[in-house]
Amino acid sequence: MVSSGLRAVERCDTLGVAPYSDMEGGLFRAWLTPAFAATQEAVAGWMAEAGMTVRIDAATNVIGRYEGTAPGAPALLIGSHLDSVRDAGRYDGPLGVMLGIECIAALSAAGRRLPFAIEVIAFGDEEGSRFPSPMLTSQAVAGGFDPRTLNVTDSVGISILESLTAYTPPIRFERRRETCVSTWFDTNGIDRAARSPGSVIAYLEAHIEQGPALEADGLAVGVVSGIAAQLRYSIVVEGMAGHAGTTSMTLRRDALTAAAEMVLAVERLARGGTSDVVATVGRLEAKPGAVNVIPCHVAFSIDIRALDPIARDAVADAILAEIEAIGARRQVSVSVDRVHDLPASPCDSALMDLLSDAMAAEGQPERRLASGAGHDAMVMASLCPTAMLFIRCAGGISHNPAESVDPADVEIARRVMLGFIERLGDSF
Amino acid sequence: MVSSGLRAVERCDTLGVAPYSDMEGGLFRAWLTPAFAATQEAVAGWMAEAGMTVRIDAATNVIGRYEGTAPGAPALLIGSHLDSVRDAGRYDGPLGVMLGIECIAALSAAGRRLPFAIEVIAFGDEEGSRFPSPMLTSQAVAGGFDPRTLNVTDSVGISILESLTAYTPPIRFERRRETCVSTWFDTNGIDRAARSPGSVIAYLEAHIEQGPALEADGLAVGVVSGIAAQLRYSIVVEGMAGHAGTTSMTLRRDALTAAAEMVLAVERLARGGTSDVVATVGRLEAKPGAVNVIPCHVAFSIDIRALDPIARDAVADAILAEIEAIGARRQVSVSVDRVHDLPASPCDSALMDLLSDAMAAEGQPERRLASGAGHDAMVMASLCPTAMLFIRCAGGISHNPAESVDPADVEIARRVMLGFIERLGDSF
Repeated sequence: MVSSGLRAVERCDTLGVAPYSDMEGGLFRAWLTPAFAATQEAVAGWMAEAGMTVRIDAATNVIGRYEGTAPGAPALLIGSHLDSVRDAGRYDGPLGVMLGIECIAALSAAGRRLPFAIEVIAFGDEEGSRFPSPMLTSQAVAGGFDPRTLNVTDSVGISILESLTAYTPPIRFERRRETCVSTWFDTNGIDRAARSPGSVIAYLEAHIEQGPALEADGLAVGVVSGIAAQLRYSIVVEGMAGHAGTTSMTLRRDALTAAAEMVLAVERLARGGTSDVVATVGRLEAKPGAVNVIPCHVAFSIDIRALDPIARDAVADAILAEIEAIGARRQVSVSVDRVHDLPASPCDSALMDLLSDAMAAEGQPERRLASGAGHDAMVMASLCPTAMLFIRCAGGISHNPAESVDPADVEIARRVMLGFIERLGDSF
Repeated sequence: MVSSGLRAVERCDTLGVAPYSDMEGGLFRAWLTPAFAATQEAVAGWMAEAGMTVRIDAATNVIGRYEGTAPGAPALLIGSHLDSVRDAGRYDGPLGVMLGIECIAALSAAGRRLPFAIEVIAFGDEEGSRFPSPMLTSQAVAGGFDPRTLNVTDSVGISILESLTAYTPPIRFERRRETCVSTWFDTNGIDRAARSPGSVIAYLEAHIEQGPALEADGLAVGVVSGIAAQLRYSIVVEGMAGHAGTTSMTLRRDALTAAAEMVLAVERLARGGTSDVVATVGRLEAKPGAVNVIPCHVAFSIDIRALDPIARDAVADAILAEIEAIGARRQVSVSVDRVHDLPASPCDSALMDLLSDAMAAEGQPERRLASGAGHDAMVMASLCPTAMLFIRCAGGISHNPAESVDPADVEIARRVMLGFIERLGDSF
């Protein structure tokens, strides 16, 4: 018999290929696609097998419930997401769901009930890889879903509303009201996924680290102290197009050389910030993009993160000031649009302590670390106290087919999560 | 009655809109399109009206011939091109053709014959805006056409061969052999456009400057000393992708920040070269291009030009050395591909002197300048001595709807060209 940790990994591997992927020769599982529906069906089956009652909520989240000693008690939620980026690894998201299922399987096999219910929640959309609106399924559960988001469209022009209306969930869904329209989804429906704060006691998420820190320290798992504050800017630089052969160097107003200087300023100022500040230009487009024409229009993105919002904002201010100075000196116009401003999301300190105690009981050294990546936990923090457990991944690589975890580490994570559940029960 | 200079400008304006453009609301005239055929028909009509015998050669060039004192004499060719870039100005190319027609109109009206024939040649493809193979119609005339070029395809996959076969020229074309196939074009045909060196005495091209030098000096026209030597490189930088939130600044191998440093090195080293060296990064693409992913792959172009090939190569060597050093320091791999190496094309010094004399006779100050842009003249230089006359254009702007010339400058150019023709006749 395989260990439960190994089974969690193997199930992620199963979900890494057809019919659970929308892409030939790799994993891409976008929200509300046929591969997504197939994955929900498999996950629902594993939840039921582990001893849970399974439903799908109004935001397409698959939820398995394991009752506590008294039926209908408020629940500890254990979750993560089923969707992936394009050409993804197999563990970013699904591993947290599989670990939740393994915890329930263990409790159920032992006939153990807690003074609270436990629900394993498999969120639908966290990555935002189909619609440019990440984490909207956890927003629906936390009660923060903005109905205007339903009009957001994917790359072929299909809106979220149209996709939800056309989606046929593979399992029974909730109908709390008899006024539902004939399709399973109606436009008011997504609000019904919102949980009342009284029905939830906490949210726990296990996730691969997606960074190299645990590996560098030789640790299997670590307690997440919080999720970094994030700022995103969209910058447009406008210079003047000109013939590459006839415009002397001194007469140029080249938008690309100006942008290049700005890209280097982003890097230099982030390096000069406190150690946990990171800043990235991930997207850059130069137009008209002809070999023999001086670029007149460059658009690029800036992503700045730090656990400490003050450190983040100090770097952001320095970057924007430098961009303005470069634009003025080079006589190009610069427009700056702040497109995203997410506050830091610290994890609950009492829950962190419970995780640390559970780690100690498993012989794991104490380790706390910030998450530079966003997670559903940051959204759930508006509903209830949250905790996150990071699992070492090889080379810190994620969003890549080379993403890899050691089943032994996953087994340790499972034991730590069970220890956390027991300790949470004891504290009741 | 309008001046002949104004008429040349007005004819370019006529050709700037439908049916002479393939694009709504602007000018785009690609080789072998319906707009191109309509333009050939109009130009052939103006040539005939000016007193020329008109034909189309096997490479789709429209050629009007004005005989000299003895029929069948070798010819002075006066030419430029009819095709345009997308969203073009109206004068880059057509103005040189219209000026050739105006010269013949003046000679013809005066009953003046020279000891040589004059042919006005309207080349088909100079810009390479449909097929990535610029100047191929002048290559055909100069005898340097590479038959493999017939397999080059446009953006929708149609080859040059297919386009030529399907093209119906609006005027009678040459049949020197009776073995022609039923369509006007056959695969061996394009070679028949090649002129024997004995049939041609020189090539003269008038063209807008496409740069700001004449305007800066307050001059209407200038003699081109030569066309710059050109080098083009395609550079690929490979770093390592990573999550923008979880990869600390010190652990990154960011292909975009490396490329940004290289782009600035191109600019800095070109500025440090001799005054006429220009270097441009016109195209830059960063992948995967997601806001939250560190770029792992950046491809960019470098275009380096100078009239002095030694100055050009010195700057190119310095740029490549710096790119290599940046790649090594940042631990990214760099591949360099030299995709283009055109030698400088100096104009004929005796013909330059004739142009200068003609300018002086019109009260125009002496001025010689290099052309940073390529022209059909650089191709024709392999067939015969060449000369070029540049005409001031507003702001040095070209390849842009804002391209503009002053009809008074065009009238000066016409008189200078007529003076050149007379002086060339005197030298016989």
